[in-house]
Amino acid sequence: MDEINEAIKKFQKELNGGTSSLVLLSVLDKAESPMYGYQIAKLIEAETKDVDIMKQGALYPVLRSLESTGLLESEVEPSVSGPPRRYYKITDSGRTTLAKWIEIWHQTRQFVDAVIEGGDDD
Amino acid sequence: MDEINEAIKKFQKELNGGTSSLVLLSVLDKAESPMYGYQIAKLIEAETKDVDIMKQGALYPVLRSLESTGLLESEVEPSVSGPPRRYYKITDSGRTTLAKWIEIWHQTRQFVDAVIEGGDDD
Repeated sequence: MDEINEAIKKFQKELNGGTSSLVLLSVLDKAESPMYGYQIAKLIEAETKDVDIMKQGALYPVLRSLESTGLLESEVEPSVSGPPRRYYKITDSGRTTLAKWIEIWHQTRQFVDAVIEGGDDD
Repeated sequence: MDEINEAIKKFQKELNGGTSSLVLLSVLDKAESPMYGYQIAKLIEAETKDVDIMKQGALYPVLRSLESTGLLESEVEPSVSGPPRRYYKITDSGRTTLAKWIEIWHQTRQFVDAVIEGGDDD
């Protein structure tokens, strides 16, 4: 059973690797103003009714990585109720990248579904 | 433009990381007899009408990795027309894992679509 559990965890991790960047960039593309991590987590939870797929702690490294590659930019602002917050917004490069990522996502989704459903769906 | 191209390539690579294992395990689950790499590539190409998403050379490391984790097993057989061929088939662990992977794939697909389409699809 150990090898099966390992394989399941590895798959989930690999799949999340690509999709978490797509999801975060997409949320910030639609946002009307810059958002901080906790806000983003709450919005995703509300839209997907799912708390498990993307745990809140997993957001932060992805946000930082998207910023380091120039797809997001951020600013720290003081908060009245606690420590300062880092607000993220999407950049022009981020928007261009997101459009291509969505295209790749759709192609990959169609490809995978065609194989696992064993037919041709389009 | 360089950072955008980098980000696009990285995304494609990460997404393929998870999905290529799923696709290969699924093909071998449905196969009536053990298959070798080139046969698998041709079958995927025929089912998806897509030659680009999963290049043939990319199959072999994934097949080997699935075998090393016990999800596939293989046997080398001589070929009349060329070098010997390695035939792969799915194991019981592979079938159990595949069922879970498909479940994870469906959840992730729904999650990502819910976010990028900005609504609730189910």
